[in-house]
Amino acid sequence: MLSTMMRTPLTLSHLLERAGRLFPTSEIVTRMPDRSLHRYTYADFYRRSRALAEALQKAGMQPGDRVATLSWNTSAHLEAYFGIPVAGGVLHTLNLRLHPTDIAYIINHAEDRFLIVDDVLLKLYEAIKDHINVEKVIVVPLTGQPVPAGLTSYEDFLATATGDFRYPELAEDTALGMCYTSGTTGKPKGVVYSHRSMILHSLGSALPDALNLAQGDVLTPVVPMFHVMAWGLPFTGIMVGCKIAMPGPHLDAVNLLDLYESEQVTKTAGVPTIWMGVLQALQKEPTRWKILPMEMVVGGAAAPEAMIRAYDTFNLKVVHAWGMTEMSPLGTVSRTKHNLVGSDPDMLYALRACQGIPMPLVEVRAMNEHGAAPWDGQTMGELEVRGPWVAQSYFKLESERDKWSADGWFRTGDVVTISSEGYVKITDRTKDLIKSGGEWISSLDLENLLMGHPAVREAAVIAVTHPRWDERPLAAIVLKEGATATVEELRAYLEPKVAKFWIPDAFVFVDEIPRTSTGKFLKMQLRDTFKDWHWES
Amino acid sequence: MLSTMMRTPLTLSHLLERAGRLFPTSEIVTRMPDRSLHRYTYADFYRRSRALAEALQKAGMQPGDRVATLSWNTSAHLEAYFGIPVAGGVLHTLNLRLHPTDIAYIINHAEDRFLIVDDVLLKLYEAIKDHINVEKVIVVPLTGQPVPAGLTSYEDFLATATGDFRYPELAEDTALGMCYTSGTTGKPKGVVYSHRSMILHSLGSALPDALNLAQGDVLTPVVPMFHVMAWGLPFTGIMVGCKIAMPGPHLDAVNLLDLYESEQVTKTAGVPTIWMGVLQALQKEPTRWKILPMEMVVGGAAAPEAMIRAYDTFNLKVVHAWGMTEMSPLGTVSRTKHNLVGSDPDMLYALRACQGIPMPLVEVRAMNEHGAAPWDGQTMGELEVRGPWVAQSYFKLESERDKWSADGWFRTGDVVTISSEGYVKITDRTKDLIKSGGEWISSLDLENLLMGHPAVREAAVIAVTHPRWDERPLAAIVLKEGATATVEELRAYLEPKVAKFWIPDAFVFVDEIPRTSTGKFLKMQLRDTFKDWHWES
Repeated sequence: MLSTMMRTPLTLSHLLERAGRLFPTSEIVTRMPDRSLHRYTYADFYRRSRALAEALQKAGMQPGDRVATLSWNTSAHLEAYFGIPVAGGVLHTLNLRLHPTDIAYIINHAEDRFLIVDDVLLKLYEAIKDHINVEKVIVVPLTGQPVPAGLTSYEDFLATATGDFRYPELAEDTALGMCYTSGTTGKPKGVVYSHRSMILHSLGSALPDALNLAQGDVLTPVVPMFHVMAWGLPFTGIMVGCKIAMPGPHLDAVNLLDLYESEQVTKTAGVPTIWMGVLQALQKEPTRWKILPMEMVVGGAAAPEAMIRAYDTFNLKVVHAWGMTEMSPLGTVSRTKHNLVGSDPDMLYALRACQGIPMPLVEVRAMNEHGAAPWDGQTMGELEVRGPWVAQSYFKLESERDKWSADGWFRTGDVVTISSEGYVKITDRTKDLIKSGGEWISSLDLENLLMGHPAVREAAVIAVTHPRWDERPLAAIVLKEGATATVEELRAYLEPKVAKFWIPDAFVFVDEIPRTSTGKFLKMQLRDTFKDWHWES
Repeated sequence: MLSTMMRTPLTLSHLLERAGRLFPTSEIVTRMPDRSLHRYTYADFYRRSRALAEALQKAGMQPGDRVATLSWNTSAHLEAYFGIPVAGGVLHTLNLRLHPTDIAYIINHAEDRFLIVDDVLLKLYEAIKDHINVEKVIVVPLTGQPVPAGLTSYEDFLATATGDFRYPELAEDTALGMCYTSGTTGKPKGVVYSHRSMILHSLGSALPDALNLAQGDVLTPVVPMFHVMAWGLPFTGIMVGCKIAMPGPHLDAVNLLDLYESEQVTKTAGVPTIWMGVLQALQKEPTRWKILPMEMVVGGAAAPEAMIRAYDTFNLKVVHAWGMTEMSPLGTVSRTKHNLVGSDPDMLYALRACQGIPMPLVEVRAMNEHGAAPWDGQTMGELEVRGPWVAQSYFKLESERDKWSADGWFRTGDVVTISSEGYVKITDRTKDLIKSGGEWISSLDLENLLMGHPAVREAAVIAVTHPRWDERPLAAIVLKEGATATVEELRAYLEPKVAKFWIPDAFVFVDEIPRTSTGKFLKMQLRDTFKDWHWES
């Protein structure tokens, strides 16, 4: 028996119309390259997004054509987020931190037809232009400098619109946008989001137990708009109608804190590395900024519990979330469940430092050789996920089918435990787990513990082949400036905290840990550095 | 171009599994007929809902079969809300306040195959049983009394399940449940909700700017579960995992206030009539109950601004919402937009007393003879709505096609203005508008103003034929016990508040205003009473 309800497709045009009709006076602020603040309203955003949509259609964009962006977090980039998909195009955000060779590969693989690029990134465009085949390049004049000959100014492009844009009718499974993962191995892999998946993700993300985003919030996405659509926040923010303050290219602690203060930001989101920098700036000058009580979503990598505790002293609440490019990205959010309020504070901090419980419509399971692991907070398994905003394949890449289970769940590559309360805790990446004498050791747990030591700035733990135990952990340590610690001290520090066989057999002091373009430890390179390590005795 | 995302259908089984896995310790409390409180957890609810699903399948329920309920707000009714749809059945909630003839008509029109009935409502069942053809009647033994011979005890029925229920795969457009509108004219009309529409409605309802429902809330739906699925709250509540406190058959002020106090309720929802009673009880004994700051959603009819103001003095926040059976039901919610905070307090109260701004995915327009009315807060038009949880037809009733516009919008029958900020304000029902000398007069505005007079308990304004002006307003007034007011006083009270031609030409004092089964004024009957009214001069 079928229902009698309307089959209204879930498409982005609804959110854009809603923004223009209901929230015309809400502000969008952008930190420009010269550090000045550019301000306009949703009424401007609405008009210009529709102008972009119309101009693209006039320039010959066909349904499904990819339009790439090479841009920072700005209001113009936000216009592209809406103007491209509502006209039937596919928004393809390029990660400007990748090597130009990879960027060119991705553009060619996606078959991008148009490219929108910030003028401050033209040097990067110059490095790739001979290796790509893009029909039209549109330059956003953030600096006000003239646009080079042969390229189109974004403002001139918008001026080709007459204002009578009409939304094409789109099925909800139509492609809205695409992102490529910047994996540490293999070629980048593309994920194609649909209008439906992004609308559902926006509804789920704004829920009180997820990001809790309301019209009265002021939102600053620090996570770049070229990283998994800035975690969907541009869509979620516009849906609820809140003020948005964009950091532009200025992601350093002082510029962010200035922005939080001047715009009275209440919600922000970014990776742990950025938040570590902001924390240090706050600790150095605790009275310099007057910031409202603010929620800081952290994701992309595990946030140290010590950092969460330190922010609490500033009345700033770090909320841990977890997701992936393949998940739009939000999968879990770690808020304290009501029935746990009043529990042991240390336990609650440990929970806040884990990945959290799954959002509505997202299903999780931890698979190991015995099947789905029990939710006991102890048994490890590879996290597999399923839901309407999870990818079921990569774009034009049939060879990667083993990333999905036979029954269709996405295999995340993260090794986790799930507690009886449903809290997911990542213990490692599958490829980073250390298998010692038949037992698993979590490199991530060891790293988080070591980074709690007062002298340690960074710690990366890797598996090194061992003649007797198969593998044993080696810890690469970066000390804080001016701090000292001996191997014996670190060993003694870990002893009360972990099983004896978990304690690394080697501690090596290094100047820095190699990182990926998104700030994650590049363990592949570390493993390569230590591949010939000789264990004593 | 299609996306690469999973096509996971939006179905209720996901919410039930989520409830069982993530929130097993959340409580569900029910006020029983003897006023005692029955308590159990989501773990029990999960087990019993699945048992009901399995038992129905074992009893021969086929996909699409209708299972009716004749029940108060109880945990058993909540089990039916989930157990029936996840097994592929269609939950059909019957309005126990209708005349038995109408209930029998609705059961027969819906072709209900099974009926679940509270034992305290067996007398009602007796009144209809000879007029319906239901295969199996299942009695919920709320009182603990033995179930009459020939009928099945709900507990015995659940005991037929073995515990190995498996969810059938359902397409998201599959029927989940149905409600019949209790209109004041014509036969009742059925709306069939889908799994998709109810999941989307649940996500939208829980948003911070809508009902703002979180896992830490305690929710009391006072609105009956036989009125538009209790405004979807059973689904929304279970989705977020919050504690739920059900009033059972006890909807009087003292029992509700006792429940709010003992269960520490934070969110509740009901019609203005109920909230007027609760307010009077609070005003009579202001220190009797210790209630947490609570949000009280009001809908189903317009709430007087004076009531909203009075509740504020008790730190209880009335949130006005508007919807219809045909809309699942939520369409608009009236919260103060951030850009209006700090405006004139009287203006803000007036906004809080209007219907509010549309939720995400719901579109509104006000249509009159010139097309869509401008959003100027002045121009009236009939409210039309569109969205994924709005009905596109009635069940087996093709004759009602004029309830939808030619381009597919649902015509609500409400006459509204829409402000530049997007606030919808109902000025009247199309059939209640008064047309005097070519101008429209809102009967609803007059009623709300009159009910703000200290001596007036209730006021209903109707159009009466007039030889010169076509129609003129007549006000039927119910005074508060012991209070007095003259026609001249009421006229003088209105004079500074409305245009002169709006002031009723007649004020008639009556003992009560006739009401529909859902508590709305039955103006049809009033119009009949005064159809031969003779205007003076």
